[in-house]
Amino acid sequence: MSKIRHALNTRRADDFAQWYQEVISAADMAEESGVRGCMVIKPWGYGVWERVQRLLDARIKATGHDNCYFPIFIPLSNFEREASHVEGFAKEMAVVTHHRLIADGEGGLVPDPEAKLEEPLVVRPTSETIIGDAMARWVQSWRDLPLKLNQWANVVRWEMRTRMFLRTSEFLWQEGHTAHQNAEEAKEHTLRMLEVYRACAEEDIAMPVIAGEKPEHERFPGAVETWSIEAMMQDGKALQAGTSHYLGTNFAEAAGIRYQDREGGQQLCHTTSWGVSTRLVGGMIMVHGDDDGLRVPPKLAPWQVVILPLLRDDERDAALLEYCEGLRAALAGASAFGEPVRVLLDDKPGKAAAKRWDWVRKGAPVIVEVGGRDMEDGVVSLLRRDRLWGENAKPAFETPTRDDAAQGIPTLLEEIQQALFAEARDRREANITRGIESMDALKDFFASNGRYPGWVEVQWAKPTGAALEKVVEDLKALKLTVRNVPIGSAPADGACLFTGEPAVERILVGRAY
Amino acid sequence: MSKIRHALNTRRADDFAQWYQEVISAADMAEESGVRGCMVIKPWGYGVWERVQRLLDARIKATGHDNCYFPIFIPLSNFEREASHVEGFAKEMAVVTHHRLIADGEGGLVPDPEAKLEEPLVVRPTSETIIGDAMARWVQSWRDLPLKLNQWANVVRWEMRTRMFLRTSEFLWQEGHTAHQNAEEAKEHTLRMLEVYRACAEEDIAMPVIAGEKPEHERFPGAVETWSIEAMMQDGKALQAGTSHYLGTNFAEAAGIRYQDREGGQQLCHTTSWGVSTRLVGGMIMVHGDDDGLRVPPKLAPWQVVILPLLRDDERDAALLEYCEGLRAALAGASAFGEPVRVLLDDKPGKAAAKRWDWVRKGAPVIVEVGGRDMEDGVVSLLRRDRLWGENAKPAFETPTRDDAAQGIPTLLEEIQQALFAEARDRREANITRGIESMDALKDFFASNGRYPGWVEVQWAKPTGAALEKVVEDLKALKLTVRNVPIGSAPADGACLFTGEPAVERILVGRAY
Ligand SMILES: [Zn+2]
Ligand SMILES: [Zn+2]
Repeated sequence: MSKIRHALNTRRADDFAQWYQEVISAADMAEESGVRGCMVIKPWGYGVWERVQRLLDARIKATGHDNCYFPIFIPLSNFEREASHVEGFAKEMAVVTHHRLIADGEGGLVPDPEAKLEEPLVVRPTSETIIGDAMARWVQSWRDLPLKLNQWANVVRWEMRTRMFLRTSEFLWQEGHTAHQNAEEAKEHTLRMLEVYRACAEEDIAMPVIAGEKPEHERFPGAVETWSIEAMMQDGKALQAGTSHYLGTNFAEAAGIRYQDREGGQQLCHTTSWGVSTRLVGGMIMVHGDDDGLRVPPKLAPWQVVILPLLRDDERDAALLEYCEGLRAALAGASAFGEPVRVLLDDKPGKAAAKRWDWVRKGAPVIVEVGGRDMEDGVVSLLRRDRLWGENAKPAFETPTRDDAAQGIPTLLEEIQQALFAEARDRREANITRGIESMDALKDFFASNGRYPGWVEVQWAKPTGAALEKVVEDLKALKLTVRNVPIGSAPADGACLFTGEPAVERILVGRAY
Repeated sequence: MSKIRHALNTRRADDFAQWYQEVISAADMAEESGVRGCMVIKPWGYGVWERVQRLLDARIKATGHDNCYFPIFIPLSNFEREASHVEGFAKEMAVVTHHRLIADGEGGLVPDPEAKLEEPLVVRPTSETIIGDAMARWVQSWRDLPLKLNQWANVVRWEMRTRMFLRTSEFLWQEGHTAHQNAEEAKEHTLRMLEVYRACAEEDIAMPVIAGEKPEHERFPGAVETWSIEAMMQDGKALQAGTSHYLGTNFAEAAGIRYQDREGGQQLCHTTSWGVSTRLVGGMIMVHGDDDGLRVPPKLAPWQVVILPLLRDDERDAALLEYCEGLRAALAGASAFGEPVRVLLDDKPGKAAAKRWDWVRKGAPVIVEVGGRDMEDGVVSLLRRDRLWGENAKPAFETPTRDDAAQGIPTLLEEIQQALFAEARDRREANITRGIESMDALKDFFASNGRYPGWVEVQWAKPTGAALEKVVEDLKALKLTVRNVPIGSAPADGACLFTGEPAVERILVGRAY
């Protein structure tokens, strides 16, 4: 395979971080904005996010949630109410202190000292407190429960070190917030939404994830339980791709979310919150990208099929375009995954080869080239982006008839979606190591398994307090973290890796974004 | 009609402003958030906005625009570049000055003085300057043009006097930004997007609008031409429902958006921008609402049909629910306006009459009640929200068979959409007065035509400079403004109302939101 001339300059195996930057740029996903910590999401990147939104929104609505919208500004005093919540966030928020600019007399502008806010406003880092205020107004009796809300919004958490899609000061997300009558129902809902995230990650993004509970030191500020889905990137690192929190009555108490129960008594609600963000796009890139650029799963691709006529700038072009348009129209009238196929006939000016490699780098799932000879033979030249290279280090074109292509591509898109998922799942399974039973073995493992060692599943006694802190520090020295306690993993049957006590559960440990 | 017991306390005829507040609250559209100038958009209100988004987004994509996302924060220096743009906005922006909070030692939080930003950031009031920066990076040659971008986002313009949906400090909108090779193409595009707005307003929102050019003193800061669509509310006031701007090379010059033309020369781009916002929801309320609440046009209704079984809390309920579910399933499988019918079977606990009136106030286009006797007779009781009252001051129920209802409702929805539009258009036409030819006549007209006098179409000489300022002030004394110069209006054939000179065009004058 060494003769292959890949479309990117950086190999994943050589420098994964640089590869990530290169693929984002080569696939035209996003770029630095010039504003500290904020990115510009370019059309192809935003198109993928729109698809994630569309598919996840349907799942969120199907589970009975209503979308709504709450203010971006949160009064400082809201953060002062819930002590553990403040602690978690207080260090990194954008604070609005003035509501007017005036000329500084030298051609510039400054905040108008006359327009200083009495109470500063925080640009929301998350909306628990302000949605809690609304819930306190909206919930009166048990009949109003459960109250199930969702919001698509931008949020800001000031970040010193940023990485596109994975950690930016401003990001786009969805935050769900629900209120329930009791702990049981709220906990059940927390897990239900975790399952919605798992389904979206695996079935829409083709990104296998492991769902489980976070250990106590990794809980969301103010939460009683935090659950996550964790995906393995191609460098073996973990990406926390979504979280779902059972908040107990902590936020209900701070905001006064109370209801009258059937017996007429006043009760505090039990609340949940859960969110996923544009980080999912980063996950998609790092799970599916290869040395030729991005590979977008068909369910997320803004264009699932790109048809490239090999135009010659002469009188034969009209017939060729007509031939291509026949395929385009047939596909646009067909469906894949229950939606019309998204197909582009790209007849922009430009060299055919350059255009092909642009679409390879962008990761359009199916690229169809059509030249004069193809047309004469009644065929097209079809390239599956997920299986780009054939023998002799050449792109693996197939040449079905145009009619067969029109008929077969919808099914092919579904096959590609499955193939990307299977490839990622197999890779992840091959990179989870079990049976490590001591800190020394753990140290050895991560020292001797190359740059991308993956995760280990170990057993522990679920330490708390100081014992947990020590575990966290020991792991930190190896740049490791506990990812989660996977749902449905085998019962513990050995000793705690950290303390030697009898273990109570299995945990995943790895490096993480 | 005096015996009708309307579902709202306030009549439109008595106090339109109070009616507006009441309908928003009674229809559960939005509420004050407790954060200055910001509202909470509740599920029914947000559901309407989501529909506007969905329909308008399809129109924007169909005209070749790509969605993308730019940072919410704009460096102060961006605003200093384009002088006339600053002037227009400088007075009302939210300014971020710190990126961290710290404990004040008394249980509270304060902006951390150590975390003061070197350059304050402005929360975007609009994104011309930051998108201009990106365009300058993305445009190299004529081949990159036209560049057609769109963004759905929240924006903030600090407002002292706010009114829900119409003027709030934070609002949701769409802002389109394009760059072109020359003035002709950019001007053409400005009008093309104005036409997209007209089509959305009239065909989706059923809100008739008049498209035209704004006079020079009403231009967007930095624009060469500003065009608007103007809708007449039921109190005869104008709502500027959308604007489209030709920006000349002003923003291109400030941001350095240049391209190499076919001859190799460097040229400045000509840019456009255009936007509509959640204000459209306010327009929908004031155009279609009546004394019983909201009337949502079927294309925008989150639920187009609501089925209300008259449950009795006994063993007969199961059969009744099954009967209703038959209708629900049939409708959900049918389509109206090319989409599946959105139908809700509302089986929540609650008294049947209270639930009916809740849906009347929310303005669901078709309400279907089903009682035990209806079921025995094989019929349903169907209420058209746009024609609520029959003879004897009673709700005008019809009783088609269940099968006829299932078959007929999709067409009925399309009829209701048309009927709402026709009603609004007829009312607007009845409330535009022509033939007023002097300031005195204008004064008399607005003094003697009651509380809701509507608009007048007059002729003027298109004054500029000081002459225009005088006109603006004279009109202001009557609380009037020039709305726009309607596209396609008859040529001028008389004297300027303001100066007596020969008129050059016709303008619409009225009170406005
Ligand atoms: Zn290779
Ligand atoms: Zn009446």
